[in-house]
Order: sequence, then structure tokens, then C-alpha cells
Amino acid sequence: MLEKRTPIPVSEAIDKCIKYAKQKEIIEMNYLESLNYVLAEDIIATYDIPMFNKSPYDGFAIRSEASAGASGDNRVAFNVVDHIGAGSVSEKSLKNNEAVRIMTGAEIPAGADAIVMLEQTVTTDEGFTLRKPFTSGENISFQGEECKKGDTILKRGTLINAGVIAVLATFSYATVKVYQKPSVAIIATGSELVDIDEELSPGKIRNSNGPMIMGLCKEMNIEVLNYHVKADDYETLFNAVRNVYQNHDIVITTGGVSVGDFDYMPQIYKDLTADVLFNKIAMRPGSVTTVAVKENKFLFGLSGNPSACYTGFELYARPVLRTMMGERDVYPTFVKAILSEDFTKANPFTRFIRADLDYRTMTVKPSGFNKSNAVIAIATSNSMIILPGGTRGFVAGDTVDVLVNRLSPSDGVPW
Amino acid sequence: MLEKRTPIPVSEAIDKCIKYAKQKEIIEMNYLESLNYVLAEDIIATYDIPMFNKSPYDGFAIRSEASAGASGDNRVAFNVVDHIGAGSVSEKSLKNNEAVRIMTGAEIPAGADAIVMLEQTVTTDEGFTLRKPFTSGENISFQGEECKKGDTILKRGTLINAGVIAVLATFSYATVKVYQKPSVAIIATGSELVDIDEELSPGKIRNSNGPMIMGLCKEMNIEVLNYHVKADDYETLFNAVRNVYQNHDIVITTGGVSVGDFDYMPQIYKDLTADVLFNKIAMRPGSVTTVAVKENKFLFGLSGNPSACYTGFELYARPVLRTMMGERDVYPTFVKAILSEDFTKANPFTRFIRADLDYRTMTVKPSGFNKSNAVIAIATSNSMIILPGGTRGFVAGDTVDVLVNRLSPSDGVPW
Repeated sequence: MLEKRTPIPVSEAIDKCIKYAKQKEIIEMNYLESLNYVLAEDIIATYDIPMFNKSPYDGFAIRSEASAGASGDNRVAFNVVDHIGAGSVSEKSLKNNEAVRIMTGAEIPAGADAIVMLEQTVTTDEGFTLRKPFTSGENISFQGEECKKGDTILKRGTLINAGVIAVLATFSYATVKVYQKPSVAIIATGSELVDIDEELSPGKIRNSNGPMIMGLCKEMNIEVLNYHVKADDYETLFNAVRNVYQNHDIVITTGGVSVGDFDYMPQIYKDLTADVLFNKIAMRPGSVTTVAVKENKFLFGLSGNPSACYTGFELYARPVLRTMMGERDVYPTFVKAILSEDFTKANPFTRFIRADLDYRTMTVKPSGFNKSNAVIAIATSNSMIILPGGTRGFVAGDTVDVLVNRLSPSDGVPW
Repeated sequence: MLEKRTPIPVSEAIDKCIKYAKQKEIIEMNYLESLNYVLAEDIIATYDIPMFNKSPYDGFAIRSEASAGASGDNRVAFNVVDHIGAGSVSEKSLKNNEAVRIMTGAEIPAGADAIVMLEQTVTTDEGFTLRKPFTSGENISFQGEECKKGDTILKRGTLINAGVIAVLATFSYATVKVYQKPSVAIIATGSELVDIDEELSPGKIRNSNGPMIMGLCKEMNIEVLNYHVKADDYETLFNAVRNVYQNHDIVITTGGVSVGDFDYMPQIYKDLTADVLFNKIAMRPGSVTTVAVKENKFLFGLSGNPSACYTGFELYARPVLRTMMGERDVYPTFVKAILSEDFTKANPFTRFIRADLDYRTMTVKPSGFNKSNAVIAIATSNSMIILPGGTRGFVAGDTVDVLVNRLSPSDGVPW
């Protein structure tokens, strides 16, 4: 089983995964439940916004021509003849120096063509006076200026965030078509792994990869089934993968992909007659990450070491999950940032280093202790520095590519 | 009720909110359920990591002194005397040119002090030969080099992400102390609002703010009760707020805060004998945002227009929610970016403009149609440009502050 593996570049590995991923079926759901799903239909404006010419301010609706010649020395007086709230419509049609008191959002009454803001007026017994002329259309939000009935407002493939929910509410999409989410199973393998409620003994380590991947999926509102196979024999592992794979779109195994004699995953994929997309990637950590596909189902063989497992999930599994759930853009978020520390190690392969990105200054440095097993850095860091293969000797001040995993709140405002 | 309001700066308004916010009570929960809660205890290493000196590679454990003088012309031979998997421990103690076949993660056997990687060896009948000398400690992950028993690994106040879950699993925190989440109620007010299943008629608009805020809270895994009060009369609104406020930590009303005659919220806060922190902020949109506090409960009076409502939530409500749920850093994420379009309007107050931030180039431009009622921009944008009050005439190429709301996936890798 010690066959030679030929590494492929990271970008090629990601592209291969995405190419084989298929969108899940379309379902229809209540729009209030649809957060974090992806639109499976375009959202079309069902009416003009604004629906009518309306006032963006609290103030008075006037005929602009009546304000002609107004100045500080020549204040023009208006009589207030009606008073309308946001949900009401005036039945008056304005003549000359008549005005209607109007609230933000209310419809412009007939005859009026400008809005005077409250703070631009001086109150009188009959109404108010003005000190400047208004032009026709001044301070009016016109019907359809934001969007017109029939406009495509949001495209299929948009992840549903709170703003999308507001758009669905606005255009009466009480139900909405979305893509079903993929179903994920995790199998943590290895006789050295012990669960959280078991005692540690020499040679054993805790199973942290299963819970971590469960968390990563839950952050995408994807539910996960977690299996733990405490064995390194081929038969047990093969049966576990074969059984789990029947009921899930994605099976993620962690552990069991290195070149050691005890690592059976690549063989299991073959024996399942799955199409192995790659079994070695020119990256550190996680070079032995293996991905296979069978009948639109994905088998991810991620490394057993936490950092490699995390990196493998972010680079290969997340884009596949995003594609299956229907997203348009599925690659990670990348920024350029300036190294604030030297990193002099050689990078025979493309290296991913858990890092702390300072959003305010766009500077970045390795996070804590940078061994590939540093589970702590996964918890505290917000990004990964990417150093290309075939390089060495990056120093503070160099610009590097950074893969961003999460936003970090600030401890104050910058201004 | 048309009393004069004195605007305060945005940063002062945020600080006031945070100052009055109190952490919720501490509860204990299963660590697998704790995602998106905040740690209410420090997480302490319960053992050294690594727990023992171990091999970071698949290879052979040797005594380094036995490799002295090895070269291409003088290969040194080793006999393999044992074979250990990741979960096992060798009972052998190495002598001179003996070696133990060892898997990634396995404990270094007694007598050995270096690891030879598989690819550095040439196989022989009895074992392998080497062409370079090894130093003591080479390729060994030492006990405690990542962390030592008793080290504080994660601080109270850390938001629990998937990496934190992995740390909890690692150190056997089967249950973990977290802060309870605040309970939120939304009251959408205004006789002009109609719900998603009702017919629109002249003068009416759809209630999109309630569903939007519900979505924003759900993104933080905070559940929300949604009320809709279709009235503008004081008595109805007062009773609604008074009743709802009894059962929730935070009551967010949308609509009813502008200076119009129909807007009773500030009066309601007074009549509830709540402490009004401010009722006007030097910002656009949303200058009439009002926040009041009573008995550790917050009353947010957000504007009825969607963009102002959204901005008010992000600037004031979200930091309060974060504080209540125990987070250490509670202010938004800020970056500096370069305007890619002119923005020539005057900014009498600090202006927040829904925007599209290009993470790759750190350039930013206003998103779509920038009226403050543009609900569509909330769905599609990922950030807000912040232009200081008292300025005008920003042009393409200027550097501006940007408040970041969400990461945007890419359509490819940048290298």
C-alpha cells in the first residue's frame, strides 16, 4: 500500500472538487426559516419602490412655484390645510400657497411637487413661512426610483442573510425556493483516539477533529452526524465508510490518510469504486488530503492532525458544501496583508499558517505556536497566511496572500 | 412633543450603550451545544501538549549518535526491531544501530532521540540505510512544547467557534460555562405597515424591519419574538412596549422615532421611567435613533426606514447584544479602504453608506441606489463606508473608514 503519490497544486485540487460538486434539490420554505440557505430562484420586484411619490422627511408638502422669490427679507407664507401621517393619504389637492403637514414616508398629495423640511420653516398661526425658493421635485422620493416592478432584485445563488429576508418580506415572498442542504457525516478514525468522557492513557489523544468539523458545519447551519471508529483494521473502517456513505452526501474521515502502514483510507475509496480526484496535494500541512467522488457523493479523507484537518476542510470541503447548497461564489475570502514578523522556514510546498490578521492595519502574523498540530491556534486565529511553494525567507514588511476565516470585533471605534 | 433634541457623536452613543450593558447570568452546557455562546470561564490545559515526546512524521526512531559520520559514500545501516502505530507504545529500549518503525503521532521509544523520515531512507533486508547524520532531538515534537498543564489556553469572553469546540474536546471540557443569551423582542410600529400576507394599498408599506432584525439576531443564534403593532396611538403603543419589556432583555422598536407628531417612542420611554441615554445622534441615516435603559434592560428605538434601522442595529444594538452575551471585544470590525467612486454629497453628520468592499483590492464603493430606504442594498452589500461629519467632496482614490458586516466568498484563488 506504499504506492507513490504525485502531488497536485492546491488551486487545481480546489477546482477539481468544485467541478464534481452538484447542487442539491430545490425545496420551498417559509421565508423566515430560510436564513443561511441559498436562493434557488431570482427575486423579482412585485411593485415599484417607492410605490408612490413620497416624502423622505417630516415637513410640509407645497407647490414649488408658490415659493418663488422667497428670501430672508421676503419670507413667503403658507397655510396648512391638511395633516397626514405615514399610512394615510390626503384627499386635498393643493392650491397656490396651501401646504399639507406630512410625515416621513407619506404620499405626496395632489398638486404638491416639493417637500419643505420642518427645520426650514418658521411657524405662524396659519402655518409657516419660508426663506428660500424650492424647485419642482425637491425633497421628493419618486415612485420607482429604487426599483421598478419586474426588476430582478436578487439572483439565484445568493446566500440568504438578514437583508435578503427583508427583501423577501418587502416583495411578499412568504415562501421562497432554496437549495436543500447537503447531509454530512464525520468518521474520526484511529485506535489512538479517545472520546471526551474517556480516560487518556499513554499513546492516546483526544478526538478533537470530529467536534471541530461538526462546529464548522453548524456555523453554516448544516447538521452533522458524528461517528467514531476506534480501530485501524481495514475491515472495520471499510464497513464503517460503506455504511455511512449510503445515507449522506458528504463523508469526512479524519485520520488515516498518511503514508503509514495503518492508513487504509485511499484503499477504501478504491474498493468502494469511488473516483479518487487526488491523494496528494502540494501543501503543508495536509499534503496527504485525499478526495474521492462516487454518485455525486464526496468522500473527504482529511489528515488526523488538527491544523491539517482544519486547512483541508476550509480549502476543499467548504467550497463543495457551498456548491451543493447552491452558492454562486464558493472560494474562500482572500486579502493581501503585510507580514509583521519574519517567517524564514523554507516552503517546499504551498504553506498555510494559522494567523492573526489585524483588520485595521491589514498586517498579519503567525498565530501562537506554529506546529501543524496546534489546535489552540485554530480557536484563536482568524486567518491563514499563504506562502507559495518553492520560496523561503519571508520577512516583516513583505506582502502576502491571506485566507480569511472570520471577522474579529474591535475594542473601539477608529475615528 | 416637538422638543429640541441635541445630537451626540456616534462614538459617544456607542460607548454609552456598552457602558450600561450587563453580562447575562452564567449557565453550564454540553460543549457540543455551545457554539456561538461566549466562554464564562478561562479554559485551562489539563495536560501537556504533546503529552509525550512524539513523532511528527512516519518514519523510524533512532539513536542519533548511531548516525554520526553518515554520508552518501558511507551509508549507515539500521536494524528495525519493532513497529508501532499511533496509539501504541514500544516496549523496546533502543541500542546503538537499532531502529523502531514509527507512525505519525506515536510516542518516541526509550533510547531513541531522533526521527528519520521515511523518504530519507533506503530499505534493506534488516531495516534501512541513511546518508546523513541526525542531531539529538531532530524531528521530535517535545512534550509540552505547544502548551503545559495549567496554562490558560482561552480567556473568558471568547466567542465559541469550531476551533474552541476542538480545544474543549482536547481538554475534556464535556460541559462548559457560558453566558446566557439575551432575550430579544421586536415591535414594528406604524399604521402604514402591512405584513407579508396582507394586501398592499395606497400609503401602506410592507413590514420588512421586523423580519430583518429577526434575521440579524438569528445570525448570532439569538432567538427573537416578533410583534407588530398596527397603530400610531399613544395608548396602544405604550401598553405594547410595557408588556413586552417585562419578558425580554432587549426591546427593539422600529418606526416611531422621528420628530413627527405621530411618533411616541421617546415619550413612552419617559413614561416607563426608563433612562434615555440619547435621542439624537450626529449620523445619517438614523439620526433620531433613541436608546433607553431600565433595570439592565435596553429599549432601542430604531428608525422605520430600513437602512437607518439596519445601521442603528449594527452600531448600537449589536455591541449591546455582544456585551450581554459576554464577549470581550464588542465593537464592529473596521478596515481602511480606497474609494473607487466619487461621493460628493455634503456630510453634515457622520454618514454611513451601504457599500461593496472588494476584499482582494481593499477598494470600496457605494452599493446600488443609495437612498436611506434602499432595502435592497442591505441584502447585497457587505460593509458601510463611514464619512465623518463636516466633510464633503470625497473622490475616487481617497482612503476611508469602512465598517465590515460580512465576508464575501471569492470566485477563484488569487495565486
